[in-house]
Amino acid sequence: MNSFGRIFRISIFGESHGPGVGIVVDGCPAGIPLCVDDFMPDIARRKAGAKGTTPRQEADLPILQSGVFQAHTTGSPIMIWFENQNTRSADYEKQRDVPRPGHADFVARIKYGGYEDYRGGGHFSGRLTLPLVAAGVIAKKILQQGTPPVDVQARILEIGGEVDPEKGLEKAIAAKDSIGGIVECVATGLPIGLGEPFFDSVESLLAHAVFSIPAIKGIEFGAGFRAARMFGSEHNDAILDASGKTATNHAGGVVGGLTNGNPLVFRVVVKPTSSTPMTQHTLNLRSGQVEPFSVKGRHDLCIALRVPVVLEAVTAIVLADLMLIAQQRPMCLPHE
Amino acid sequence: MNSFGRIFRISIFGESHGPGVGIVVDGCPAGIPLCVDDFMPDIARRKAGAKGTTPRQEADLPILQSGVFQAHTTGSPIMIWFENQNTRSADYEKQRDVPRPGHADFVARIKYGGYEDYRGGGHFSGRLTLPLVAAGVIAKKILQQGTPPVDVQARILEIGGEVDPEKGLEKAIAAKDSIGGIVECVATGLPIGLGEPFFDSVESLLAHAVFSIPAIKGIEFGAGFRAARMFGSEHNDAILDASGKTATNHAGGVVGGLTNGNPLVFRVVVKPTSSTPMTQHTLNLRSGQVEPFSVKGRHDLCIALRVPVVLEAVTAIVLADLMLIAQQRPMCLPHE
Amino acid sequence: MNSFGRIFRISIFGESHGPGVGIVVDGCPAGIPLCVDDFMPDIARRKAGAKGTTPRQEADLPILQSGVFQAHTTGSPIMIWFENQNTRSADYEKQRDVPRPGHADFVARIKYGGYEDYRGGGHFSGRLTLPLVAAGVIAKKILQQGTPPVDVQARILEIGGEVDPEKGLEKAIAAKDSIGGIVECVATGLPIGLGEPFFDSVESLLAHAVFSIPAIKGIEFGAGFRAARMFGSEHNDAILDASGKTATNHAGGVVGGLTNGNPLVFRVVVKPTSSTPMTQHTLNLRSGQVEPFSVKGRHDLCIALRVPVVLEAVTAIVLADLMLIAQQRPMCLPHE
Amino acid sequence: MNSFGRIFRISIFGESHGPGVGIVVDGCPAGIPLCVDDFMPDIARRKAGAKGTTPRQEADLPILQSGVFQAHTTGSPIMIWFENQNTRSADYEKQRDVPRPGHADFVARIKYGGYEDYRGGGHFSGRLTLPLVAAGVIAKKILQQGTPPVDVQARILEIGGEVDPEKGLEKAIAAKDSIGGIVECVATGLPIGLGEPFFDSVESLLAHAVFSIPAIKGIEFGAGFRAARMFGSEHNDAILDASGKTATNHAGGVVGGLTNGNPLVFRVVVKPTSSTPMTQHTLNLRSGQVEPFSVKGRHDLCIALRVPVVLEAVTAIVLADLMLIAQQRPMCLPHE
Repeated sequence: MNSFGRIFRISIFGESHGPGVGIVVDGCPAGIPLCVDDFMPDIARRKAGAKGTTPRQEADLPILQSGVFQAHTTGSPIMIWFENQNTRSADYEKQRDVPRPGHADFVARIKYGGYEDYRGGGHFSGRLTLPLVAAGVIAKKILQQGTPPVDVQARILEIGGEVDPEKGLEKAIAAKDSIGGIVECVATGLPIGLGEPFFDSVESLLAHAVFSIPAIKGIEFGAGFRAARMFGSEHNDAILDASGKTATNHAGGVVGGLTNGNPLVFRVVVKPTSSTPMTQHTLNLRSGQVEPFSVKGRHDLCIALRVPVVLEAVTAIVLADLMLIAQQRPMCLPHE
Repeated sequence: MNSFGRIFRISIFGESHGPGVGIVVDGCPAGIPLCVDDFMPDIARRKAGAKGTTPRQEADLPILQSGVFQAHTTGSPIMIWFENQNTRSADYEKQRDVPRPGHADFVARIKYGGYEDYRGGGHFSGRLTLPLVAAGVIAKKILQQGTPPVDVQARILEIGGEVDPEKGLEKAIAAKDSIGGIVECVATGLPIGLGEPFFDSVESLLAHAVFSIPAIKGIEFGAGFRAARMFGSEHNDAILDASGKTATNHAGGVVGGLTNGNPLVFRVVVKPTSSTPMTQHTLNLRSGQVEPFSVKGRHDLCIALRVPVVLEAVTAIVLADLMLIAQQRPMCLPHE
Repeated sequence: MNSFGRIFRISIFGESHGPGVGIVVDGCPAGIPLCVDDFMPDIARRKAGAKGTTPRQEADLPILQSGVFQAHTTGSPIMIWFENQNTRSADYEKQRDVPRPGHADFVARIKYGGYEDYRGGGHFSGRLTLPLVAAGVIAKKILQQGTPPVDVQARILEIGGEVDPEKGLEKAIAAKDSIGGIVECVATGLPIGLGEPFFDSVESLLAHAVFSIPAIKGIEFGAGFRAARMFGSEHNDAILDASGKTATNHAGGVVGGLTNGNPLVFRVVVKPTSSTPMTQHTLNLRSGQVEPFSVKGRHDLCIALRVPVVLEAVTAIVLADLMLIAQQRPMCLPHE
Repeated sequence: MNSFGRIFRISIFGESHGPGVGIVVDGCPAGIPLCVDDFMPDIARRKAGAKGTTPRQEADLPILQSGVFQAHTTGSPIMIWFENQNTRSADYEKQRDVPRPGHADFVARIKYGGYEDYRGGGHFSGRLTLPLVAAGVIAKKILQQGTPPVDVQARILEIGGEVDPEKGLEKAIAAKDSIGGIVECVATGLPIGLGEPFFDSVESLLAHAVFSIPAIKGIEFGAGFRAARMFGSEHNDAILDASGKTATNHAGGVVGGLTNGNPLVFRVVVKPTSSTPMTQHTLNLRSGQVEPFSVKGRHDLCIALRVPVVLEAVTAIVLADLMLIAQQRPMCLPHE
């Protein structure tokens, strides 16, 4: 389904070239100050326009259609709507029978029997990350009300193997190709004990949310894949004091599925944009032949560049839900 | 929560040193042949006993307490129960105030206010993977009824950096330490279009389930983290025919969150067993001092060795749920 | 939460005097013909304007914002939006401190700490039944595709104790008061076996959905409360043939929580509109005194008159979900 | 599914003539004192043995298989198991082809393709209310920790139209038939604002849970069906003071789907036991003929007699869940 969360619950909808995209945020507490301006910084961070991003320009102005009154949340569902304006659907009509490699065109056509909105990826489009960013802004507000406030920050670790994103991007430009990257996310200020063992482990919930971001193909916590070559005595984080602070953070802040009071640290890999300027080959469903193929439409060269704010958003959404859930365990008086 | 799945839904319970561990499987179709013998091969694969695994020996005999009648599933919830027999809880009483590094001892104590069953990790124990394996057996039976049958196989890729698990294990034995590893899982025979875009993407659901297995700290699909250094023209899998078959499988069988008809391929990293024979340091909660610490109890040297069958189980559980869900989209007549 | 359903899942949002009201319908199969005109007959049935209904007139034009392409459903979430146009919020500003008896004003103020949108009941308003009716139209389309088609019809049984609604309404007009009523809903064409024992019984799911309609205070199936005075030999419905047809229908078409192949029959009671023209008494929160109170705003004299189409809608929503779920039990081959 | 609840979540399993029946209670806070003796009073209230109840006698001893340690809840799932001992399954084998009128025999056979456990109703049996009562005991403990404590009490209002249950039962005995009844449930001490508008209204959740009890065919809150003949000025409950206390309680303590600080009051109708001593007629599936039929097995004459404690249990389960959810709305500072 297109919903996620237990207490703080989001539902997304919309298509790349339809009337717009939007989200319903249910379960948000009443009384949080909220206005359109609050959304603009994160929306700007997600926006295209920089080198390597799509030339499609959208106003991306959030319209608060419900759940906000007198500049505060009311406790009722918040619906945020973004109109699509700068669509050029004709680009897509032509390539209806030529599923783009790396895109959902082919699988969507099979799954929905040909009824899918195929223009620009339709509901599968990265444009759906815009309402996710908007919900993330609300989630961050909830996290900032913690004591201490919870802070979530994501940044690019490498593009095309280069620590300097500009260098990685130059590689792609030189090769006339798209390129992948790695993004890291860190959350600080989390209390001990968020999450549950097994199916609601912090890792389970975060991974679930993170893989809903198009183009993400892997996630690792703390030492991650390096742990495969570590000894237990290396990997274990020695507890230093009663706050749970550890000497190292190979666990990435999660033990037994629960936050342990140290920074939550994870990394994701973003595949190269499927729409590369290079000529490729794919099946023509009408002719039944594999044919050369060139991308139509306007696209990012490196989608990883726009991922950090989306990654922060889904992380904040998961953590806000866990923070709200955590407030309902009152009969747990300390035991000697 | 301790439940997972939408149609085929599991709920686990139990503790390492309590009366036993178990699982309820709800939403299983009626009419599937099922008896105790069906469970034994996978249970045997999970069992301890080989070099590098814990000397704790349990009978691990599944007791079918409900939902099975005349050797077939009835459509009602199936409860499977495993008694604990070979417990030596006294080992744990002594170390109550000394949270083991890498384990959930400390976070559980904070989260549950000291009321948690701390013996052998309690509800956080890897012993809870036993009922997961049992549910996996039922899920595999559902998958085998597909046309073609869906097959799920996991295998160890490396232990401590060695492709030969024996060599990796020897490293650990020589170092008197525990060691990590990487496990790969492949599912074949899947139809096109399982999963949903965004929150019910195949990657989201599998990652969610996989991170419920203790000790797993990362997951990657297809090319995974290597995608960060690939160009789009390299990573894209060219579609070759109307079955969706692609020339390469860098996507790991999932595009746009949906299965694409190619083998589903993903890898997970298993951290080294937290209980290493090496002396470590941790906080003594009573004295408030960081003190040297030696593991009590009986443990695996390399938990990765026992992961494959558990990974198959949670994968089969997710896929069985998706297969059952997929059967309810009938109004989707092909569209020209 | 503001969501309901397992496979066919709806999420409502909006306020009486905000920008509008809407609904997201997730899990609708692709390929169902759908356009604005399809919604108009049921929307017209719900509309005000007849004797005894509110003079507030709204265009109630559904805007299909997502999930529909080329006049068919796409399989992606369908968002339907209704703008509010004819709002007169000033009526409500004045009575902020005088919670209307029978309305949610007082409890909402406490629950949301004063941040609720109090204008015209805000999110608690009966106006939210408009998007429910819209979702009901889609659900009815799914039901009509069954073999045989499933038909859902609701009608007024009595108003103010009178079988002729006009007479009951005249009573209210004469008394210058609002009045209650009883509405019956019948669904035919249902297959045997929808629903589950216990928590997903057909009665549980229908009652859950029905009590989400404002003003409904009771529900009974088949013989309902009359069963309290019946003997078992009277109440039991004798099975007559292999289609499950019974001689009587005291069970209302549901046995053991499952549909039994006979018409589904239930009745609901609708309380008199809380906003009566009569002078009442309520607490003035500012003065702390109980004071006389007269209703401001525009209201229905008998809300039951507008309930049938809403009742059909929520019934169709529940049944469509159950029909879609029922299609996923394939391994259940007949057993001798 | 066989699960219910959002935070405090129960899952039932088992069959009337299988090994036993049980329940998993997930989401229960840690630190609640709990032992076997706590369950015995409510289990005794549900027990057979009095006049008009089945002669089948079971020990009904709860076995706490997980989630309890040192006589307190641990915060992990609590599994409670009841063995079946006094089963006489041979009674049922004989009537395999003769579906009992009023029972789920026929619909279950169709739904599960003949694979259902048909002995004594199998999973549809009223014996499943035993684990519900056990979960209710835990829920009541949570409610008792409120300030003020929340109290839930159910009682028989009438049997066969007689206010004195004994008289109603005598009617049935004289008629050699089974008989129905009405049970009322009242909860006091509830805070204002539990529940949500629409799908999580208190009425929706309670009705959902209540209709999971076999034999219940109707529910009404406060004035209930009498509201159909009331004027608004009669039905409205005038608010008297800032605690929300009202002059009357026609709403049954729920307004706008939320608790309003007054006692929660609702009534349910319990149909006459389907297994009546009277000879009835039903279809013989083998012969295809409608034939006379006499009940085998041991049964209650008036199941309503055993309903009150079950009704209390499901009510307490719903309210405990809502109390736990209510504790997570902290950003809702009072607004002037």
